[in-house]
Amino acid sequence: MEIEDWRDEIDRLDEQLVKLLNARSQCAIELGRLKRELGLPIYSPDREREVIAHVTGINHGPLERDAVRRLFERIIDESRSLERATVEKETNFRAKNAKARKVPKKRS
Amino acid sequence: MEIEDWRDEIDRLDEQLVKLLNARSQCAIELGRLKRELGLPIYSPDREREVIAHVTGINHGPLERDAVRRLFERIIDESRSLERATVEKETNFRAKNAKARKVPKKRS
Repeated sequence: MEIEDWRDEIDRLDEQLVKLLNARSQCAIELGRLKRELGLPIYSPDREREVIAHVTGINHGPLERDAVRRLFERIIDESRSLERATVEKETNFRAKNAKARKVPKKRS
Repeated sequence: MEIEDWRDEIDRLDEQLVKLLNARSQCAIELGRLKRELGLPIYSPDREREVIAHVTGINHGPLERDAVRRLFERIIDESRSLERATVEKETNFRAKNAKARKVPKKRS
């Protein structure tokens, strides 16, 4: 295989990675909505430790354990930011709508 | 779906992510070996820009463009470190072996 072949292979893997990272973020958003309904906080340090233990536990390399940990810390961080931003936006939207319903429009 | 179901779903996605990230790193190592044979440098800023443009171009969210860029900057960084470390280790090993072959063992 030549340089271009390896780069094409990496591009194909990256396309799958983009899909999976987005699918993971969509799950995090759904989880965030559920936590809001249940009155639970977005940040769950125990669960984040569990995720890191899971991914480093199933890793067979060539990436080293610490590299996998660093990568998933970033992945968790981006998922959590998106989960928080989406849930906050929806909560504010609901609050605004609820307020609008309470103040009837003046008759012209 | 309940909280545990979403977390299970995330765990399944993470398992696929670990496999893909390692497959990507293996490609980077092969690419590094090829570059060494051809006398090319490991660091290719143009190629790294191309990778970021590719992944942000195919992204349809929910992750934002900047989040995908940050994630792949980390992925590229870890791949490059491993590529460099592996190729350097192999080069040193070859140099050591070549030196050992030149110095014949003393007869006892």
